[in-house]
Amino acid sequence: MTTAQPLTPRTADAWGQLLLDCHTAGLPRDAYFEICERDDGYISGYDAVGFFSGPDAWPALDRWAFTRFRGRVLDIGVGAGRFAVPFQDRGGEIVGLDVSADALDVCRRRGLTETFLGTVDDLPESARFDTFLLLGRNLGLLESRERAPRLLGALARLARPGARIVGTGMDPYLLDGAQHAEYLAANRLRGRMSGQMRLRLRHRLLVTDWFDYLFASLPELEALTEGTGWQLAEAERHGPDYGVVLTLA
Amino acid sequence: MTTAQPLTPRTADAWGQLLLDCHTAGLPRDAYFEICERDDGYISGYDAVGFFSGPDAWPALDRWAFTRFRGRVLDIGVGAGRFAVPFQDRGGEIVGLDVSADALDVCRRRGLTETFLGTVDDLPESARFDTFLLLGRNLGLLESRERAPRLLGALARLARPGARIVGTGMDPYLLDGAQHAEYLAANRLRGRMSGQMRLRLRHRLLVTDWFDYLFASLPELEALTEGTGWQLAEAERHGPDYGVVLTLA
Repeated sequence: MTTAQPLTPRTADAWGQLLLDCHTAGLPRDAYFEICERDDGYISGYDAVGFFSGPDAWPALDRWAFTRFRGRVLDIGVGAGRFAVPFQDRGGEIVGLDVSADALDVCRRRGLTETFLGTVDDLPESARFDTFLLLGRNLGLLESRERAPRLLGALARLARPGARIVGTGMDPYLLDGAQHAEYLAANRLRGRMSGQMRLRLRHRLLVTDWFDYLFASLPELEALTEGTGWQLAEAERHGPDYGVVLTLA
Repeated sequence: MTTAQPLTPRTADAWGQLLLDCHTAGLPRDAYFEICERDDGYISGYDAVGFFSGPDAWPALDRWAFTRFRGRVLDIGVGAGRFAVPFQDRGGEIVGLDVSADALDVCRRRGLTETFLGTVDDLPESARFDTFLLLGRNLGLLESRERAPRLLGALARLARPGARIVGTGMDPYLLDGAQHAEYLAANRLRGRMSGQMRLRLRHRLLVTDWFDYLFASLPELEALTEGTGWQLAEAERHGPDYGVVLTLA
């Protein structure tokens, strides 16, 4: 036999369910993996333990970012609360925002008091923050040339005077392997940004919808901020990964 | 956008390439995962570090099995040589057999001197062994009601007097989760054994062909040995996992 039943994963919140399963499993958490599929068939796995680790276990870039939170903080794509929980534990004021109800459930079980289910577009118009987090490479939520100015504009409207964005991302041109170079070239051919990854996450029988997640070089990131009011104030590189602070002009 | 390009992973030795990538990456190996897809869309990941671990890091069942190797040993589905390399290091005589050339490449780089590329059906008729290993749950290579007696018969023909099979497997009826119970029931409906998993492995852009891998309960395993000359001599349970020694009647 070389054929098989067609794959029928169920479209659902694979990401939130992974975090929930991993959280409820308790320690050790070494049997939980984020499985990420790209639309060319490239598949990769990441140990979910990292989504629950404390500052002592973080990569240097995350510790660099953590020292840059100021005032009232909005953690965009809070996930399991890796940054939000320790920041609140240290007396910080932070709201965890996520489109995943399961992820927010995990955050609340871990003690996070302020959570918001939805995107930044769903926040009340009166909400204001001093710091916006796009960590865990969540600069990727800028998505595309079309989405990036809309998201950055929304954050500018939610910003208190002197507000900042603290984010981490990855330079797609520094990824190893011919498979990535081919994908970037194919993206450019179809009018997308080179590092505009079309992804979905899978967990057991669950799969998310396809979504765009952007890996941009620092010059590309700077270009995306044009006309949004935000500008690059700090940048820190660690191999293909980088951290940035953006401030309002 | 909710559509995407069709997935086009390349049919190839995803398993061997994973082992090769993991081996050549050196330590730490914590970024490598075996990603396994079942034909109902269920997907799971396993840390590839375990495929390289030494006896001190093994689960109790593997250590139990390791004490049961006798004489000249054939390791069927040797993988990265987790059992074969330490057994040879202790002066044991062992041949690593695998259908993956990349896996055997990894074994040789790790010092294994005797390797064989192919299945047991491809071995010379004159080859003889005292112990056959089906470890790492490789009792799964019994595949199905149809394949099991053929594989066991082939091993009987390759057996020296007093030979044994040392294997580990998993009882599918002890798997947690409704998703597994549904899969087992669907298998029975289509005339397959309950735990006859139809799987493929994926790694980066690579995917294997679909293959059957059998999880059988101990009574099912005993039934499969009928008429093959092999009989259950020892069994050791650890939750859903078990180890067995089969001997020739």
